[in-house]
Amino acid sequence: MSTKNIFEEYGEDNRIRKTIKNSVKTTCSAKTIKKRLPIIEWLPKYNGTLLIQDIIAGITVGLTAIPQGIAYAVVAGLSPEYGLYSGLLGGFVYLFFGSCKDVTIGPTAILATMTAKYVADYSSDFAVLAAFLAGIVALAMGILNLGFLVEFISIPVISGFTTAAAIQIAGAQLKAFFGLSGESGKYFAESVYHFIRNIKTANLWDPVLGFATIVILIFLKKVGEGCGRNDCLMKQLRWFTSLARNAVVVIIGIVLAYVLKVTTDSEPLVLVGDIGKGLPKFQPPPFNTTVGNKTYNFGDMVQVLGPQSIVLPLVAILESVAIAKAFAGGVHVDATQEMIALGFCNIMGSFVRSMPVTGSFTRTAINHASGVQTPAGGIFTGFLIILALSLLTSTFYYIPKASLAGLIITAMFSMIDYPILCRLWTTSKRELVITIFTIAICLCVGLEYGIVSGIILEAAMLLYSTARPSLNIETVRRVNGDVIILPLTGKVYYCAAEHVRRALLQSSQTVLDSIIVIDGSNLKHMDSTVASNLMSIIKVLEKNSCQILFLNFSPDLKKMCLVLNPKISDKFVVASNAVEIIDKISKNV
Amino acid sequence: MSTKNIFEEYGEDNRIRKTIKNSVKTTCSAKTIKKRLPIIEWLPKYNGTLLIQDIIAGITVGLTAIPQGIAYAVVAGLSPEYGLYSGLLGGFVYLFFGSCKDVTIGPTAILATMTAKYVADYSSDFAVLAAFLAGIVALAMGILNLGFLVEFISIPVISGFTTAAAIQIAGAQLKAFFGLSGESGKYFAESVYHFIRNIKTANLWDPVLGFATIVILIFLKKVGEGCGRNDCLMKQLRWFTSLARNAVVVIIGIVLAYVLKVTTDSEPLVLVGDIGKGLPKFQPPPFNTTVGNKTYNFGDMVQVLGPQSIVLPLVAILESVAIAKAFAGGVHVDATQEMIALGFCNIMGSFVRSMPVTGSFTRTAINHASGVQTPAGGIFTGFLIILALSLLTSTFYYIPKASLAGLIITAMFSMIDYPILCRLWTTSKRELVITIFTIAICLCVGLEYGIVSGIILEAAMLLYSTARPSLNIETVRRVNGDVIILPLTGKVYYCAAEHVRRALLQSSQTVLDSIIVIDGSNLKHMDSTVASNLMSIIKVLEKNSCQILFLNFSPDLKKMCLVLNPKISDKFVVASNAVEIIDKISKNV
Repeated sequence: MSTKNIFEEYGEDNRIRKTIKNSVKTTCSAKTIKKRLPIIEWLPKYNGTLLIQDIIAGITVGLTAIPQGIAYAVVAGLSPEYGLYSGLLGGFVYLFFGSCKDVTIGPTAILATMTAKYVADYSSDFAVLAAFLAGIVALAMGILNLGFLVEFISIPVISGFTTAAAIQIAGAQLKAFFGLSGESGKYFAESVYHFIRNIKTANLWDPVLGFATIVILIFLKKVGEGCGRNDCLMKQLRWFTSLARNAVVVIIGIVLAYVLKVTTDSEPLVLVGDIGKGLPKFQPPPFNTTVGNKTYNFGDMVQVLGPQSIVLPLVAILESVAIAKAFAGGVHVDATQEMIALGFCNIMGSFVRSMPVTGSFTRTAINHASGVQTPAGGIFTGFLIILALSLLTSTFYYIPKASLAGLIITAMFSMIDYPILCRLWTTSKRELVITIFTIAICLCVGLEYGIVSGIILEAAMLLYSTARPSLNIETVRRVNGDVIILPLTGKVYYCAAEHVRRALLQSSQTVLDSIIVIDGSNLKHMDSTVASNLMSIIKVLEKNSCQILFLNFSPDLKKMCLVLNPKISDKFVVASNAVEIIDKISKNV
Repeated sequence: MSTKNIFEEYGEDNRIRKTIKNSVKTTCSAKTIKKRLPIIEWLPKYNGTLLIQDIIAGITVGLTAIPQGIAYAVVAGLSPEYGLYSGLLGGFVYLFFGSCKDVTIGPTAILATMTAKYVADYSSDFAVLAAFLAGIVALAMGILNLGFLVEFISIPVISGFTTAAAIQIAGAQLKAFFGLSGESGKYFAESVYHFIRNIKTANLWDPVLGFATIVILIFLKKVGEGCGRNDCLMKQLRWFTSLARNAVVVIIGIVLAYVLKVTTDSEPLVLVGDIGKGLPKFQPPPFNTTVGNKTYNFGDMVQVLGPQSIVLPLVAILESVAIAKAFAGGVHVDATQEMIALGFCNIMGSFVRSMPVTGSFTRTAINHASGVQTPAGGIFTGFLIILALSLLTSTFYYIPKASLAGLIITAMFSMIDYPILCRLWTTSKRELVITIFTIAICLCVGLEYGIVSGIILEAAMLLYSTARPSLNIETVRRVNGDVIILPLTGKVYYCAAEHVRRALLQSSQTVLDSIIVIDGSNLKHMDSTVASNLMSIIKVLEKNSCQILFLNFSPDLKKMCLVLNPKISDKFVVASNAVEIIDKISKNV
């Protein structure tokens, strides 16, 4: 055991002091600046080879970022160009602050879904303000070094949340997929309800195109399997088509819609329609807005966004950290740094009317597969989006919504985490309950409520288990009275105080004139509630003419008891183990 | 180690199943009925001697219950007779459901303070409905067997809360004590603000009587010291006067006010004034009401009461359980049973226009000191209150408010927990922070916010400490590569997964070609997040040509890992300790 560890175990207050001192120290060091601006680390080593690899990866990602961006803007109920605005600046900002080369920042399905209700009930200004606020919150959390908070979200909760999000996002696409009229619903249960209610309004050609899109996407994915960037030309082509499959299906949709329009002069498919042309103006996010006849000032807008202002950045951070972890190859991901990066991405984004953005799983995977070398890849994705906004918006008019729906639904299939359910079924039913609970709340009440409820349920279970430590009470039979040994191990907290008391009283009820040894040899920490409970038990036990002994309590823990009752210092004994102390007592009595 | 304990450690799912089975079983047994109606236990053994002792104690308590009841009604801003209504039924109901003979149910200063704002802003109907709702919530919690919840409130939080409540209650009495005009304030900071603002409106005679009341109370308390129920007649008289001191000072106040009125035909003191005469009608609590011109239906009223509907019963349960614990003499207090008892007391009370009630510390102490034998003592307190309501209300007109203020302020002195602050300063600064934080929030924002914030802060600290288990990593230097041993002990939870990963990666960075032994000999539990993190570390470490071994993992824990990665089953080894496994490896390599 090193010195540091002894220190950790006993000097609690000292530790706190040291922690504060250290955190002040580290905040201001050169090492920290390097950590907070990772570009300083990699830029000096940058060269032409890396640049070419980054350009290829960035453009490949862009080919997915454009159709996905448009699709997610539609998910959020926004005009399609918002999806492109949202992809504009992420890469440029992440270039400076990003710690994981593969992560691609932009709009995601989950954030779009979480923004959708404000857009539906109010206006696009709320989506932009949500991005700004999410940025501020994420940045503030980063500055306060709150990265550790994401450690309190367990895999069962994360995977329940992602699965539910995938189901909900796919559910919300049913409307576009079947070309229904009416609403699409704010959470899954509502989407299903609307779907069933409006099923009679379904078009013929929308679902046909939707299903075709899904089939093509699955086919193109299969085509690329086993091919790589360094294979022969044929395989390279297959590999690239497979990576760009999202762009491919959208282009097929556009061509189809355009041909239909030109040849039949009708629009049998529901199309995306007019897209605002050109780059957005660089201007502050809307701090006040008018919806209908009502004017909302900043305070009103924040009130409308409500607790979402906290949950949305949390979800954004979570997505980004989870993705970074998946692609960091086991290297430690600094969640605090991701918070700072996301904070700036969202704040800057809100100046070009972006909706909330975070790391995207699909695009990050493509980035990784395309062999990106540094966060610089994001710049080229950004340039491609700028190009699209400047030149292609009239083409985007023809994107069929059913193509986008098919694209989104296909992407969602891979987000559903089936294996975890089987795995938890065989290994931990408790965690399975947590996952299912998270999914259920997400689907029936809303995504943000689901993740928060899941986190709280799991923390509550942890607290409950801390309150019920296993106490291996041993009873040693002797001629002149029994000896009860209660070993307290590890850390015993206030919530376990009553449990310890109950166990002691119960075991002492069966015997009279016995000696009770509370073995603190492996007790590292207890708090004043536990100490106070132990002291109060002494009185009761002594009434039953039991004798109580405290074995091998550390000086700190002994002091904690003696402060409460200074008369009992003779009850604290030291021995190599409980048996030795019993021998001693036997001789004395 | 008994069979039960092995069971506890490994078969987690089995345990859950067994727990559910047991709880269903115990809910329906004869033993449970006895536990839930404690009167069945003691009534058959009841006799004349016990009856006489209960009558004496009951009447002694009544002499305090009447002035305190009136005082707390005034604290709540209610008409004084409400204090008596609130004391009416508690004793009769607790007779059946109460598990602790000493506990006396009635209005208390804390609950009165928590009710005050509704009475001030709306009407007395809200206080009665609050009692009804508190009863329903407490009863529901009892039926759901949620007694364990109070174990999550540590002594630092409880004592911070009680101290803050005492300060606030005393602060709110400054108005009556000095005979000021204006408001008294909803929390301490506000009370002080109003006091300073209105100090110029102070009367002369009110503070004089107030101070005199305090002096007399302290004097009478001293008089009774060292005297008991079984001493000589003189000492008995001193003892009884001391116990009935609250009644004595109020009677002195009444006589003084009456003499002043008759002799000078003026009222220089602020008096309690008209009191509704006679017993209240037995009728359902007000499920709708009118305040000013506005009619509130049940839903509106519940909305007005808001989160208080949950916090108020929690505080009531807490007070009652804390008192029961203090007087149970170390015997286990069944918090669930107290919830049921309080539930019925409040529900029944709300039918006679009671405000929320719970166990009162002062009256319980008097009950104990008067030698009460069974909960039957409460009946006689009830009868005395009925008598007072029928005959004495015209006398109560003359009670000076300053007498009541003096009485309350004196009672609050003993509620402030000074010693705990010194104690925590020397033993645990962390817990001191919690206490001070609780006090600060209670005084500056409100009592209910304070206790909830305190509970959350402490739970958060516990969670954080669970997320940072101390890991005693050992490095054994060898000729052919170092061996790093990481023992995982006790229960390792999801929130510690990242910490374990960081520690492992850090320690393996310094050495290459090393063997890392994760020693699970003392590992009782880990969840799937930890398992999954361990599995992902393997990949990274193997890249650094490190070899990883899992030592003595229990079959359940091994299974949890193998489900994630079936290929690594050869990495699980069994040995008596880490040194043995190192020897083995050394021979093989």
